[in-house]
Amino acid sequence: MPSLLAPEAQKADKDPVHTGRPDLVVPSPSALFADPCVLVIFGASGDLTGRKLIPALYELDRQGRLPQGTRVIGMSRTPMSDEAFREKMAEGARKFATGFTEKQWSAFAGRLFYHAGDAAKADAMPGLSKRIAEVGSHAGLLRQGGMPNILFYLSVAPSLYEQIIDNAGTSGLVAEGHRWCTINAEATPWQRIIIEKPFGTDLATTVSLNQALGRVFEEDAIFRIDHYLGKELVQNIAVMRFANAIFEPIWNRQHIEHVQITAAETVGVGNRAANFYDTAGALRDMIQSHLLQVMCLVGIEPPSVFDAAAIMREKIKFLNTCVVPASGQIPKMATLGRYGPGPKPDDRAYVNEEGVVPDRRTETYAAMKLFFDNWRWAGVPFYLRSGKRLASKLTEIVVQFRSPPTNMFRNLGPDVLNRPANRLVIGIAPREGISLRIEGKVPGSGLHIASAQLDLDYQQSFGGETIEAYGPLILDAMRGDRTLYKHRDEVEIGWRICDPFIQNAELRNSIATYAPGTWGPDLADALFTPTPGGPGTPAGPGAWHNPTPDELGS
Amino acid sequence: MPSLLAPEAQKADKDPVHTGRPDLVVPSPSALFADPCVLVIFGASGDLTGRKLIPALYELDRQGRLPQGTRVIGMSRTPMSDEAFREKMAEGARKFATGFTEKQWSAFAGRLFYHAGDAAKADAMPGLSKRIAEVGSHAGLLRQGGMPNILFYLSVAPSLYEQIIDNAGTSGLVAEGHRWCTINAEATPWQRIIIEKPFGTDLATTVSLNQALGRVFEEDAIFRIDHYLGKELVQNIAVMRFANAIFEPIWNRQHIEHVQITAAETVGVGNRAANFYDTAGALRDMIQSHLLQVMCLVGIEPPSVFDAAAIMREKIKFLNTCVVPASGQIPKMATLGRYGPGPKPDDRAYVNEEGVVPDRRTETYAAMKLFFDNWRWAGVPFYLRSGKRLASKLTEIVVQFRSPPTNMFRNLGPDVLNRPANRLVIGIAPREGISLRIEGKVPGSGLHIASAQLDLDYQQSFGGETIEAYGPLILDAMRGDRTLYKHRDEVEIGWRICDPFIQNAELRNSIATYAPGTWGPDLADALFTPTPGGPGTPAGPGAWHNPTPDELGS
Repeated sequence: MPSLLAPEAQKADKDPVHTGRPDLVVPSPSALFADPCVLVIFGASGDLTGRKLIPALYELDRQGRLPQGTRVIGMSRTPMSDEAFREKMAEGARKFATGFTEKQWSAFAGRLFYHAGDAAKADAMPGLSKRIAEVGSHAGLLRQGGMPNILFYLSVAPSLYEQIIDNAGTSGLVAEGHRWCTINAEATPWQRIIIEKPFGTDLATTVSLNQALGRVFEEDAIFRIDHYLGKELVQNIAVMRFANAIFEPIWNRQHIEHVQITAAETVGVGNRAANFYDTAGALRDMIQSHLLQVMCLVGIEPPSVFDAAAIMREKIKFLNTCVVPASGQIPKMATLGRYGPGPKPDDRAYVNEEGVVPDRRTETYAAMKLFFDNWRWAGVPFYLRSGKRLASKLTEIVVQFRSPPTNMFRNLGPDVLNRPANRLVIGIAPREGISLRIEGKVPGSGLHIASAQLDLDYQQSFGGETIEAYGPLILDAMRGDRTLYKHRDEVEIGWRICDPFIQNAELRNSIATYAPGTWGPDLADALFTPTPGGPGTPAGPGAWHNPTPDELGS
Repeated sequence: MPSLLAPEAQKADKDPVHTGRPDLVVPSPSALFADPCVLVIFGASGDLTGRKLIPALYELDRQGRLPQGTRVIGMSRTPMSDEAFREKMAEGARKFATGFTEKQWSAFAGRLFYHAGDAAKADAMPGLSKRIAEVGSHAGLLRQGGMPNILFYLSVAPSLYEQIIDNAGTSGLVAEGHRWCTINAEATPWQRIIIEKPFGTDLATTVSLNQALGRVFEEDAIFRIDHYLGKELVQNIAVMRFANAIFEPIWNRQHIEHVQITAAETVGVGNRAANFYDTAGALRDMIQSHLLQVMCLVGIEPPSVFDAAAIMREKIKFLNTCVVPASGQIPKMATLGRYGPGPKPDDRAYVNEEGVVPDRRTETYAAMKLFFDNWRWAGVPFYLRSGKRLASKLTEIVVQFRSPPTNMFRNLGPDVLNRPANRLVIGIAPREGISLRIEGKVPGSGLHIASAQLDLDYQQSFGGETIEAYGPLILDAMRGDRTLYKHRDEVEIGWRICDPFIQNAELRNSIATYAPGTWGPDLADALFTPTPGGPGTPAGPGAWHNPTPDELGS
């Protein structure tokens, strides 16, 4: 039934990899079918659904990329008709969807349904099951056993995750599924689940959640969403590293002095504090969940092929080589901070934000230095930092190369001594691009050397439409492509690395206060000096890359 | 007498390298003194003097870079007063000097003198010698023995070179000189000579000229000028390769597939033909004299230090590894062409240009492939080409890198297969800059790969004033800095490489005609196919880089 397939999937249809079983193919990621399914959103009255998920689905539909039969059932406790739900969702789409028109919305809204119920209660499941079958039947999506493919989306409070997963399991909605998507509508339907972070708050809770998931879903059917990885440039790192032959030969300890990964925000915690942030902090909220992933893309060995499983294997291999410092070393390997008051009366210090418990010493800024005990990176520090109320909104990777082994121009006078080494800055936000700092001769007589940048702006060079990250990610889940999703092992290793930092009392007691609009506590600069006896001893001379607004082009 | 030194030289004064002899220093290039001297221009009534040399000297003076005592004596056969000479030179400067003002010219013109005489006749020398002493004395430039430093400039027909050099030798004007400049005015004066190309027309005539020079001047005192090397970017290549740590690790046969060096002109031969071009051709006029030099800067090993002698050693080492093909192979290693008629009636074919002898089969286009038998470059072809009436005015170096050893994205569909490999284009003219082609992910869902350029425009990035190349070169000669000048060995090896191509009858008889405004004979494309049994067998797939006007930004 090729008419069910989105144009993209139809095109990809040409070259499936046959497994010998007629109903199954082991496709390459681009050849995966965006199988039509019933998408069940738990937490449909929540903020995320209205602001992100539905607008993203609308945009996919508008671009003709949503498989034709796709249906969405929103579920939450509030009673609401399908019509009321559609109207509520329209409000969000008008505000947050790009390219919104009432006409296109009407065409899309027919895909939306609402089912009232408390998914955390087991007795809600039979009703949901019936509704799924009904909606699926109308859309012509039913498969063997009378059910359509189902994609669950957990858009509820994390405390409800395990209960809902358990209920889905005991309801019989989830069968032991196929590992791969099917090529004909007569086949057994699949059930998959998308989960929003946080996936636990430490190693123990994460393991518990993963065990709950594992009792119901196979790992291949679990899509741990990290919208960070939907960002174009992060995916781009793999292309940059492995579709070019010039970077890989110098992408190692012999040529790279250190790596910096920064995610800086200018805003404070605001009213999120009471609900969530004060129990999380920057290490959990940003470093463990996002920056480790970005770091993986910089650090992994070349995967055998660009698919989810191969990349995942490399990420896990890389993360497993991370040297977790002994607790006595940790205070020298990390810096925590929280922002102080700003110049304006309503620029409150973090400790005065509503809902903050100052004694928790929750960090709004964290910086850490990690080493990896492998052939490629031994002795090369990876510096990660993230913070709120910093000088600029900025997400970037800095690959700092070593200096030339000798300065051939040393006899030309003092201005050619101590020239900075080459540096590759991979901008993720606000500007997506690559900037390579090289040294060049200044025009004019006399040989003077200065730094210059080779620049590449992604939007400018490639054009193309940037898509709100949720859309492509949901589409990937429909296609069974986990490239941008997190594997259980990855999440758990992330906690194994971060937990010792999060839980280190000495580190937490040394939390510094920094002025809003700066680049965080001065203390973080000390991470660039070697830690005697610390893991991976060599930490070169260096400094944080703190670009000025000018350099950011803003 | 520090007041005699230009500001630049005074600054450099700080750190001379002492040799143990109080009157001598072995300075590093930037610390060389721009010693005031009497500059004697043979051929003062010629085109070059009025259009290039005097405007360049004027500009140096205007910028305060000409040593204060500097005097210029123009010599040629036409009788003329100093005043008449100054007026004649003023005409050229008004047209060709940047920043010309009458006031600044007046201040400069007092440095100019004229001496009528035929330097090719031995009896002209005593009069010149007297004039030099007189002019030098007035300027306070006399040194031990009652003579100033003298810098001869041979701006005459090459056929007169040897006679004038001989005359200068027998006149006693040239003593066995110091190898280095002196730190006090009481010291023995030096005598140096600048010679314009061509330095001979083949190996035999070059050796004869070099022998004539060697009988009178020490090699250190001979400055074989190649205005090509005064170009900013060519000097810049050394900085690019050796002040950056990221290029050297991939600057070899393992990572580079081939190198292209192109010097293309859109103009034809015009009225130069009768006098000179038809007896020279593109191989002599451009490839032997200029492109081999540029090629050296791409190919040499890192010099121990950036000075003339060290760089020269590396150039000679590199050129000596050039594999000169056997005569039977040469027609497969090179292509000659001459331009045909253009669409307009006055767009004459080369063979119809005034003064051309068609049976000479002089090439206006030459392309050749060279291999180097050394550890860095074995099997990597260097393609050189130069021509007149081509599609664009363009001088550039293309470093074509190899493809990644494996295409990790092969499973993502046909558009990621056969992606182009990385390429570094070093633009010399009309745009000075660097452009690195890399592969990146196209923004949007789905992983599509496209090429993009990391660009660096030298003028834009560094600002600074570009100086007509003659000025700095003359200043270098005054300072004794030979970095941008050619050594005897380099010139002679150049002929050893090019003579077999120039003299190959089979190659010359196969000369092709190409349409003006194209990139030359199609035949030249065949150089990219391997030559079975030819030297350095592997010649990869590849093609000439023929940028469109768009790509050149014009």
